[in-house]
Amino acid sequence: MDVLAVLNLGDLAQAFSKMGMFPVFDVAYYIVSILYLKYEPGSVEVSRKSPVASWLCAMLYCFGSYILADIMLGGSPVDYFQHNSHILLASAIWYLIFYCPLNLFYKCVAFLPVKLVLVALKEVVRTRKIAAGVHHAHHAYHHGYFIMVIVGYVKGSGVALISNFEQLLRGVWRPETNEILNMSFPTKASLYGAILFTMQEAHWLPVSRSMLIIVFTLFMATSKVWMTARHSHSSPFALIESWICH
Amino acid sequence: MDVLAVLNLGDLAQAFSKMGMFPVFDVAYYIVSILYLKYEPGSVEVSRKSPVASWLCAMLYCFGSYILADIMLGGSPVDYFQHNSHILLASAIWYLIFYCPLNLFYKCVAFLPVKLVLVALKEVVRTRKIAAGVHHAHHAYHHGYFIMVIVGYVKGSGVALISNFEQLLRGVWRPETNEILNMSFPTKASLYGAILFTMQEAHWLPVSRSMLIIVFTLFMATSKVWMTARHSHSSPFALIESWICH
Amino acid sequence: MDVLAVLNLGDLAQAFSKMGMFPVFDVAYYIVSILYLKYEPGSVEVSRKSPVASWLCAMLYCFGSYILADIMLGGSPVDYFQHNSHILLASAIWYLIFYCPLNLFYKCVAFLPVKLVLVALKEVVRTRKIAAGVHHAHHAYHHGYFIMVIVGYVKGSGVALISNFEQLLRGVWRPETNEILNMSFPTKASLYGAILFTMQEAHWLPVSRSMLIIVFTLFMATSKVWMTARHSHSSPFALIESWICH
Repeated sequence: MDVLAVLNLGDLAQAFSKMGMFPVFDVAYYIVSILYLKYEPGSVEVSRKSPVASWLCAMLYCFGSYILADIMLGGSPVDYFQHNSHILLASAIWYLIFYCPLNLFYKCVAFLPVKLVLVALKEVVRTRKIAAGVHHAHHAYHHGYFIMVIVGYVKGSGVALISNFEQLLRGVWRPETNEILNMSFPTKASLYGAILFTMQEAHWLPVSRSMLIIVFTLFMATSKVWMTARHSHSSPFALIESWICH
Repeated sequence: MDVLAVLNLGDLAQAFSKMGMFPVFDVAYYIVSILYLKYEPGSVEVSRKSPVASWLCAMLYCFGSYILADIMLGGSPVDYFQHNSHILLASAIWYLIFYCPLNLFYKCVAFLPVKLVLVALKEVVRTRKIAAGVHHAHHAYHHGYFIMVIVGYVKGSGVALISNFEQLLRGVWRPETNEILNMSFPTKASLYGAILFTMQEAHWLPVSRSMLIIVFTLFMATSKVWMTARHSHSSPFALIESWICH
Repeated sequence: MDVLAVLNLGDLAQAFSKMGMFPVFDVAYYIVSILYLKYEPGSVEVSRKSPVASWLCAMLYCFGSYILADIMLGGSPVDYFQHNSHILLASAIWYLIFYCPLNLFYKCVAFLPVKLVLVALKEVVRTRKIAAGVHHAHHAYHHGYFIMVIVGYVKGSGVALISNFEQLLRGVWRPETNEILNMSFPTKASLYGAILFTMQEAHWLPVSRSMLIIVFTLFMATSKVWMTARHSHSSPFALIESWICH
């Protein structure tokens, strides 16, 4: 009976880790990402003044992780832009969020219960991206553990890591801070996630990849939903960190 | 008789689109580009203080489009620097424009009638670069329409797109603006040109590539000569844009 | 007798140019590089506030030359990070220099006699990097003399060329200057060295590669040791430059 439960959990994890992300999860990812872009001060003015700059920023928010990972592995930074359907989908969402009459679409997706669901779905995509990034880097560099962590990290953090340059595109320059100097929760969690997935890929963790994906997804989704619901910026890591650093 | 005229026009376009750019057109391109660099405030002081920085900026002005396109397609950013004769030619022109005794060379090429001819020749090169960029991207990504537009765009705009970083090389930093936020006429025209050439490459335009090259060249050369002669910055697109945006 | 001396010198140069750099010379390189990072104002605060940012800066100081050369030749910027032992060694030295109790390690290696030895060893590595960079570029572009100079130059200068962005990582932004605009002695010497090694590779210099390596190493080590011992920033080139520019 017990063995069966374990098997079933393994099967569930397996199925979950193989589930397609396109289009439902990807749409949630694009919506939440572009929502965060709209929260940035001045981004609405930019969308009126220069739609091209606004569109480019939206694309960086949606596909920054692919761009960075492709750069890290020496590929073309616009490689992902060959997937026309993804780009068109993200562009449509950018258009709806910034230019929809009466701001209707924005109001719908920014409505808290809807947003919480979307945020949870976004974290599913983030975890998958980290796992895929580590796996991809492992394929290119079999023993390049640092490279695996770096690629998984940029796949999870995406645009946050280049926020200084994304802001520059909108005419904003804040050199005194950056995402490495002051890590937000998702960036820090991506780093830890990348380390975990690298350890799994190197067979240093006695756990299957699909199991790690489901556990990490649950942790990320719960944390982010909790933080979003509470409008909180305090990280779940704060307790551990204050304990280590004192 | 009429058919013959059309045939001849087709032949002319064909011949024009196959005409070699080196060295006459390329020289015009280098002269006008480095002329614009000399117009930049502070660039003469930089050429006295650090010839290496000045030379690098001149190279970015002349070959920025190749550097950006190579980066976009995942190649070596200095790939074009293997063409020693092009680099030497551009370096000679940089030397003449910045260091010629009595500023003689500069005075000759900045003399308006001469400059108008050079500006027209430069636009011939720009159009060819856009077409080549789109074609090159099409070769790498058969259905990557966004990539074709991006590569054609950076091939046409060149250094303008990285002007913030080119200025940084000269110790100037103006984060409040950039070429995407405030597009100048050549950048905007390059974007439209890249879209047109991509549509042609995808067979969505009922026109041959060589015909599009000759028409777009005529439009660009006329516009730029007109704007240069009138010292005007108002774009030929302004009328259409004000009509759309109101 | 005389011939024998020449032969022996040739053999010595040959042996010297084949000598392995790992781990003694590399350790010296890492120590001196991270020492310079610690000299930067604010870098100790960064190491307390964000160890990840501090570690990244240390890696840029140690491996910036590999990162830049890989970018220049179109490869993966993190390619060198596959050498786990080098990264671990550099990380250990970063840890000792920034976090060692009582600042003991720092005090040892910053003690002038020790530092002078380390500085000399570092210049051995720098010269080898320039030669290897030019050779590598020659392999990729047989007649790309400009590319050889560029790759040799970035291999010799390393992080100095991207110091603006390295500072940005630490929250510091000084756009009014950069290493190209105000070249320090090592950057300038790397440029001259890259030109010499390129001329050697193109068979324009009647001297063997190993001989050039030993002569250039001696020049660099002597100059840097002299400058470090005298706390001087005046370049050995200053005399020649003031003579040319007047």
